[in-house]
Amino acid sequence: MSVFTTVTEEQLSGWLKHYSVGSLTELQGISAGIENTNYFVTTTHGPNGGRFVLTLFEKLTRTELPFYIHLMAHLARHGIPCPAPIADRDNEYLGTLHDKPAALVTRLSGRSVMEPDARHCAAIGAMLADMHIAGQSYGRKLENPRGPRWWKDVAPQVMPFLPPDEQWLLKEELRFQGLHHTHDLPRGVVHADLFRDNCLFEEDDGARVGGIIDFYFAGNDALLFDVAVTVNDWCSRTDGSLDENLAQPLLQAYHDIRPFNALERSAWPAMLRAGALRFWLSRLFDLHLPREGEMVHRHDPTRFRDVLRQRIANSIPLP
Amino acid sequence: MSVFTTVTEEQLSGWLKHYSVGSLTELQGISAGIENTNYFVTTTHGPNGGRFVLTLFEKLTRTELPFYIHLMAHLARHGIPCPAPIADRDNEYLGTLHDKPAALVTRLSGRSVMEPDARHCAAIGAMLADMHIAGQSYGRKLENPRGPRWWKDVAPQVMPFLPPDEQWLLKEELRFQGLHHTHDLPRGVVHADLFRDNCLFEEDDGARVGGIIDFYFAGNDALLFDVAVTVNDWCSRTDGSLDENLAQPLLQAYHDIRPFNALERSAWPAMLRAGALRFWLSRLFDLHLPREGEMVHRHDPTRFRDVLRQRIANSIPLP
Repeated sequence: MSVFTTVTEEQLSGWLKHYSVGSLTELQGISAGIENTNYFVTTTHGPNGGRFVLTLFEKLTRTELPFYIHLMAHLARHGIPCPAPIADRDNEYLGTLHDKPAALVTRLSGRSVMEPDARHCAAIGAMLADMHIAGQSYGRKLENPRGPRWWKDVAPQVMPFLPPDEQWLLKEELRFQGLHHTHDLPRGVVHADLFRDNCLFEEDDGARVGGIIDFYFAGNDALLFDVAVTVNDWCSRTDGSLDENLAQPLLQAYHDIRPFNALERSAWPAMLRAGALRFWLSRLFDLHLPREGEMVHRHDPTRFRDVLRQRIANSIPLP
Repeated sequence: MSVFTTVTEEQLSGWLKHYSVGSLTELQGISAGIENTNYFVTTTHGPNGGRFVLTLFEKLTRTELPFYIHLMAHLARHGIPCPAPIADRDNEYLGTLHDKPAALVTRLSGRSVMEPDARHCAAIGAMLADMHIAGQSYGRKLENPRGPRWWKDVAPQVMPFLPPDEQWLLKEELRFQGLHHTHDLPRGVVHADLFRDNCLFEEDDGARVGGIIDFYFAGNDALLFDVAVTVNDWCSRTDGSLDENLAQPLLQAYHDIRPFNALERSAWPAMLRAGALRFWLSRLFDLHLPREGEMVHRHDPTRFRDVLRQRIANSIPLP
């Protein structure tokens, strides 16, 4: 469960007086999420029926949060269906509740589709391209905190827990990635975690994206890295191999909005591997080196070990 | 009808490439409105199901528009359910279509309630108070273009068209208003036209405000002026007299969010008359001095003559 800090209706009613969204009519804890406290909040007026999500940030600090909060505000202004932070009476997005940074954001509707078809993949490809373009005018910068620097930091820590063949795979992949420079690729703000569970499709229309959520891994990186992360989650079979019937429509829909260039076509096979490596590493890290007091939802690392092996063996070209 | 400039699907599809809202799926002219060309636009992704309104501004200029457009963006950021302008790839809200300033804004849902009950009046009172508070941090300024200066300009022009008793009423009211100074009242951004048809209530919940529209009379003025304009429309009987059973809940709901002060209580009876005078004058002007080529929807001026007379005869105190 993810209500680490309890907020009562009375406390929230008082806090909402800092906002212009009327008064509280409903408050309900959200069980999903592993790092923050989240509540569904309904008020007497506001966008989308006065339906909001209240987040109390349990780890991210007031120094770190503005990049993410203002990114969501920026993307929402551009029509990207992401949680839009609500400014308070002091014109600030970040408030304080129970001595923690807290934000009220719009609540999106829809549901995740865990077995997407070609239409869903085309929809998320188009959405991602539009998000990358909208992000080009975002002013704040934050180096992707799960980039190559982090890989090099984490790999030695998880290495002792791996069997010999995986140790070899990890070392070889780090060596391989070290040979590839990505700085000349088109760069910008990447979501970096656009897995199926971070995308909501509208209930009544199977392939219309109603919401993109969870921007707390976002940062600046090669845009192609985001495409690779997305393809690896949305278009992989159970054995980790790439399903071309899903990957092709995703990539084509992306390309129709933001055309891939020659450098990206050249970098693509290595980038698919980089996207797999990043999640293999983070899952190994969360499994073997859990941080004290942190309720990490531990995903199976072998999933991305398999994806990595499959991407080394095979790829599909960009449009 | 209000499609003064025709936009084809092909033209709009091309224009939408400047935005990050996917591709066009539906385009439909809107028959309401008297000054601008409006279309309902649906795209493959965006907030609220990718549903937008496209407006081509037929009169307002690029110099005048930023006050209104940025005001809507500001209020939307604060959770006020108003049309939120969408920024394009250049990070601009105002584009150009057929050589006219054009904007894409979010489409709100709901319907106007022309026979409001006490619940609707309480809801709009609370909404107005929250809008006034959210507007306090708005940076741009524009003097209410339909304020006392405009009255003095317009009154002599409409005077010759009036029968003697109305001439006397108009002169006396202008003299009376000239004795009252409103500059010490709490001021801010006022909608100044929050009539019942500019408020949308959610379909499935009779008294939840789903949208406030038409900000093109907004400006800076005494906040109490906005309250007076709203009460005069929402809480008047057919003969123009004030319905206390509607006015009282509206004023109380407003007061609960932004408490009236002593100066406002003192100024209230005169302000109700000022709110009536403003619309009597504009309706007289539109009726007797229609501007060439303008398709003005002519409302009956006698309505606000009657409201004015009733407010001179009677009022109700602020909470």
